[in-house]
Amino acid sequence: MTQHSNEPPGAGATTLVANRETLERLFIRPENAEARAALIKYMEQILFGLHDFLGRHVGITQEASLKSLSERFVNTRISEHPARKLSDVIDALIEEIAPHAVNVASPYFIGHMTSAIPYFMVHLATIVAALNQNPVKLETSKVVSLHERQVLARVHRLVYGRSDAFYDLHVQRPESALGCFVEDGTLANMTALWVARNRLLSSADGMAAVETDGMAAALSARGIRRLVALVSRLGHYSLGKSAGVLGIGNKNVLPVPVDMENRMDLRALVRMLDDLSRTEPETRVLAIVGIAGATETGTVDPLPAIADICQKRGIHFHVDAAWGGPSLVSEKYRHLLAGIERADSVTIDGHKQFYMPMSCGMIYFSDPSAMDAVAYHARYINRIGSVDLGIRSLVGSRAATSLALGGALDIMGARGYALLIDHGIELARALAAEIRRRPMFQLITPPSLNILTYRLAPPELARRLARSAPADRPPVNAAINQINIDLQRLQREAGRSFVSRTTLATPWGETAVLRAVIMNPFTDMAILNEILDEQEAIYRDELME
Amino acid sequence: MTQHSNEPPGAGATTLVANRETLERLFIRPENAEARAALIKYMEQILFGLHDFLGRHVGITQEASLKSLSERFVNTRISEHPARKLSDVIDALIEEIAPHAVNVASPYFIGHMTSAIPYFMVHLATIVAALNQNPVKLETSKVVSLHERQVLARVHRLVYGRSDAFYDLHVQRPESALGCFVEDGTLANMTALWVARNRLLSSADGMAAVETDGMAAALSARGIRRLVALVSRLGHYSLGKSAGVLGIGNKNVLPVPVDMENRMDLRALVRMLDDLSRTEPETRVLAIVGIAGATETGTVDPLPAIADICQKRGIHFHVDAAWGGPSLVSEKYRHLLAGIERADSVTIDGHKQFYMPMSCGMIYFSDPSAMDAVAYHARYINRIGSVDLGIRSLVGSRAATSLALGGALDIMGARGYALLIDHGIELARALAAEIRRRPMFQLITPPSLNILTYRLAPPELARRLARSAPADRPPVNAAINQINIDLQRLQREAGRSFVSRTTLATPWGETAVLRAVIMNPFTDMAILNEILDEQEAIYRDELME
Repeated sequence: MTQHSNEPPGAGATTLVANRETLERLFIRPENAEARAALIKYMEQILFGLHDFLGRHVGITQEASLKSLSERFVNTRISEHPARKLSDVIDALIEEIAPHAVNVASPYFIGHMTSAIPYFMVHLATIVAALNQNPVKLETSKVVSLHERQVLARVHRLVYGRSDAFYDLHVQRPESALGCFVEDGTLANMTALWVARNRLLSSADGMAAVETDGMAAALSARGIRRLVALVSRLGHYSLGKSAGVLGIGNKNVLPVPVDMENRMDLRALVRMLDDLSRTEPETRVLAIVGIAGATETGTVDPLPAIADICQKRGIHFHVDAAWGGPSLVSEKYRHLLAGIERADSVTIDGHKQFYMPMSCGMIYFSDPSAMDAVAYHARYINRIGSVDLGIRSLVGSRAATSLALGGALDIMGARGYALLIDHGIELARALAAEIRRRPMFQLITPPSLNILTYRLAPPELARRLARSAPADRPPVNAAINQINIDLQRLQREAGRSFVSRTTLATPWGETAVLRAVIMNPFTDMAILNEILDEQEAIYRDELME
Repeated sequence: MTQHSNEPPGAGATTLVANRETLERLFIRPENAEARAALIKYMEQILFGLHDFLGRHVGITQEASLKSLSERFVNTRISEHPARKLSDVIDALIEEIAPHAVNVASPYFIGHMTSAIPYFMVHLATIVAALNQNPVKLETSKVVSLHERQVLARVHRLVYGRSDAFYDLHVQRPESALGCFVEDGTLANMTALWVARNRLLSSADGMAAVETDGMAAALSARGIRRLVALVSRLGHYSLGKSAGVLGIGNKNVLPVPVDMENRMDLRALVRMLDDLSRTEPETRVLAIVGIAGATETGTVDPLPAIADICQKRGIHFHVDAAWGGPSLVSEKYRHLLAGIERADSVTIDGHKQFYMPMSCGMIYFSDPSAMDAVAYHARYINRIGSVDLGIRSLVGSRAATSLALGGALDIMGARGYALLIDHGIELARALAAEIRRRPMFQLITPPSLNILTYRLAPPELARRLARSAPADRPPVNAAINQINIDLQRLQREAGRSFVSRTTLATPWGETAVLRAVIMNPFTDMAILNEILDEQEAIYRDELME
C-alpha cells in the first residue's frame, strides 16, 4: 500500500498510507507485464528465500532464547497506517520468523509427525488460496464439491476397497457421505464419536435424541447412566478430549492395557466389556477404538480381533489411523493394517503420511448414511437434498483442501507414496537393528510401522537395573530417565538434529524414551548413525558423571 | 514424477513412473537455476492462468449442468502410477475446475460472505504452506507460536481495548490465552459454548465436572435438568449445532423473537429468562448470544443492554461477530458494535471481513484464564506450563494461519481495512435507497452494516398484498415468493451476477428475500444498478404472466 499508485505494488515509496487508490491496487488482478513481474518476484522471494533458510537450520535453538524471542513479539496494536509492504512482510518472515521457526523439512528432524513436503505441495496450496472456494455449500464451490467427493471416494476405496458398483452409486449421490474433510485427526476422531453417539441415542426408537435433547435427557430416557469408549492406553489424547466435548466425559474413555508389543490386550478388553455388562448394567459401550499407528510407538492394534468383538456385541468400531492410514498404499506393507476395512469409521491425516501441508484431517465411514446422524440444515444454506457438503460436517466454512490432496494423489500415484512408506518402515527397522547393536542404547519399542522408541542406557546402569530386585529398580531407572531427558534437550538445543521424547510404562516403571519417526525420504542410515553418535557424544561430554 | 530425472520437474516425458530418483526430485529444494525457473513457471501458470479465468466468469452455471458435471468426477481409484505431472494438474485445475468453480472475486457476486481477496493474501498463504509449521506445540512451530500470540493480542485489543499493562502482562504469558485460531465461526462458537459449559459445570464446587464426568453426571449432581442458551432467532445455525455436539441439545438453544429492526427483542428476552426461572427451576442458562452482523440480515443486536442483563444475572455473554467483528477497525462505524467489549467471548472470522483466504476462524475471551476450562495435556505434547498453543484448543494440528493474518494487518493497517468496511456500509445504504426508489422492489431489511435484503414485488401484487385482509395475504405473498425464488435462480444460472436468497418471517408470513452482501471494493452503484436492471429484465422477459 504505497503512496505512489503507479509503481508496482510494494515498490519504492517509504511512507505507507491507506487510500482508495492503493487499496484498489491490492485487489486488482495483474493486467500488465510489470504488475505480473512484481507478483512473480514476490513468489521467488518466498520460495527461494525460505529455501535458503531451510537448507541451513533445524531451527530449534536453546530454551533460554525463548524468553528473549518472546520479548520481540509484544506489539499488541494494529498500526493505523500500513506498517509494511508485502516485500517487507516476506523479508521479515524470512529473516525474523523462519530462522527461529522449526525446520520440519530437515532429514535430521526425526522427532515429529511433521516432515518435509514435496515442493509441489506449496503450489497446490497456492492454488487452493487463489481459487478461494468454500465447500460448505455448492454456491461457493460448485465443481470443487464434486471434485472433493471424488477425492473422498478414492481414499475411502483405499481403506475399504468396496466394489465398483458401490462407488459408482455413492461417489456423487448427494444423500451419501463416504467421509469428510476436517481440520485434523482430533476433529476426525471427534466426528467419529459424534456420529457413533448420535446413532446410539437417536430418535429412531421414539425416545429423546442426544443431538436435539442433550446427553442428560437422552441417557435418562433409556435408563443409561453413562456411555464409555474403550481404547488402548496408547490412544491419542484427542479421544479423551472428544469425549469431553461431546458431553460423554473424558474419564469415560477407558484405557485398555496393552500386551508386550504395545498392542491392545484383547483378553483385557473382553474382561473389561464383560465386567461392565455384569457390574454396570446402566453403562453402554459407545465405541471401541483401534489404533493404526500409535502416536508414541507407531503400533497397530489387532484390528481383525477387535472387529470380531465389535461385530458380535454390536459396538461401533473406530480406527484411529491418523498416522498409519496412508500405509495402505504400499502393496508390501498394507497387510500391517489388515482389518481396517471392517471399521465403522476411520481417521486419516493427510498432513502426516500423505505429506500434505498443514492441515488435512479426514474421517471416513463404512456406511454412506452414517453421517445422516449429524446432518444440519438451515434456511440459507445446506438445504435438504442439496449437494452442499456442509450438511454433514463438524465445521462450516473451510478451505478446499481436497483440491491439493487430489492433485497430490495424481502426481504421486499409489506407487510414489508407497516408496515413501516403504522407505520409512524399512529404515526404521534398520535403525532398530543399529540401536540393538550399540551397547549404549536400549530399544524400547521396535517399529511396527516407521516409529520406534529407545533410550540411552549406559551399560553400567543397564546392568545394575537388570540385576536389581524389583524394589531397587526405581532409583536406577530414574537415573537413566534423567539422562534421556537431559540428552534430548541438549541435542535439541544444539540444533543439528531432533528426536522427540515421551514417557512409556515399562517393566522398570515410568520410562523416559527417545522417539524416532522416520518419514523424510532424505533420512538415511548415515544420518541416523550421526544422530546416535551425537547422542553418545553428548552423554560422554556433558552428562557422564 | 517423470521418467527422465534430469529434466526440470514436470517437463517432457509422457510416461510417468514412480521411482526413488524421481521421488527425491519431488522433495529436493531447487539447487540450480533451471529447477528454480521451473518452480516459478508453475507459479506463473497458477497466478495468471487463474487470473484469466477469474476475469471472465462468475462461474455459477445452470442447474442442469450439475448432473453432467458430476459425471466427470466418478473415477474413484488412486492410480497406481503417477497420473499427471504438476503442470498438468495445474492445467486441469484451470481448464476443468476453475471454469466451473465460483468466481467469488467478481464484483457482481454480491450474494455471499466470500469475496475477492487482495492479491497478497495468496502470497501469504504460500508462505504458510512453505514454512509448514504446526502451532499445536512449540517443537513444531517455535517462534511462530510467539508471533501468533502477538496477532491474537492485536485482535483482542481491537475488540476489548484493554490497557497497555493488560496486554504487556498477557501477550506472551504461557498461562494466559486471549483467544485462539479455529477453522471457522462454527468452531469458534462451539469453543465459546464449550468454555462456558465447563466453567458452569466445573469441579471447583467439588461436584462432578462436565468435561471429565459427562453432561448427565454433571447436571444430575447439581439437580439441573437442562442447560439452555438464548439467541435471537436470526442466530447462526452453528449455535444449535454446537449445542448438539456439546451434549446440551440443539433444541435447548432457545430462539428469542426480534423487534421490527431484526434485533433481539429485549423485553422478550427478559420475559423468557423470568419464565424460565419461575417455571423451570431446574433449568440453568448457559449463555446469551448477541449477534454482531446476522448472517441473513447483517443486523447487530443491542449489545450493551444484553451485557447489562448478563452481568446482572451472572450469565456468560457471547457475541457472534463472525461477520461484523472487523468493522471495529472503522473509526466511523465501530460505534455500531458498541458493547462488544463487554462480552465474555467473541467470534470473528478472518476469512470474512479481514479478507483472508479460507479459512481463519477466531475466538476471543475477555478473561485470559477462561480457556483453562478446556485445557488438555498429554505425556508427549502440551506439557503443563509449556507455551504449546494446543493446550487450550478444540483442534490439535493446524496451519499457522496467524502468519497470514499478521502479515495482512501490517500491509493493510487499520485504515486500509477501514476503507473496505466503510465502502461496504455506505454502498449498502446507497443500494437500499435505490431499492426504495424503484417501484418494482421492496426493501425488506435495511442495512445495519453491509448486508440488506429485498425482493422484487410487482406493483400490482404489492398493492393487492397491502390491501388484503390478513387472511387473504398468504396466497398473494406466496406468489411474490415464487417470483423471487425463480428470479434468483434464473439470474444465478445466467452467470453474470449473483445475489443469494433466504427466507425471513415478515408481517406477510414466510417471505423469500434476495440478499446482498456488499464487501467487494470493486462493486459500485453502477454494478448494483446493472444487477437490479437484470432482475427487472428477467422478471419481465421470463416470469411475468
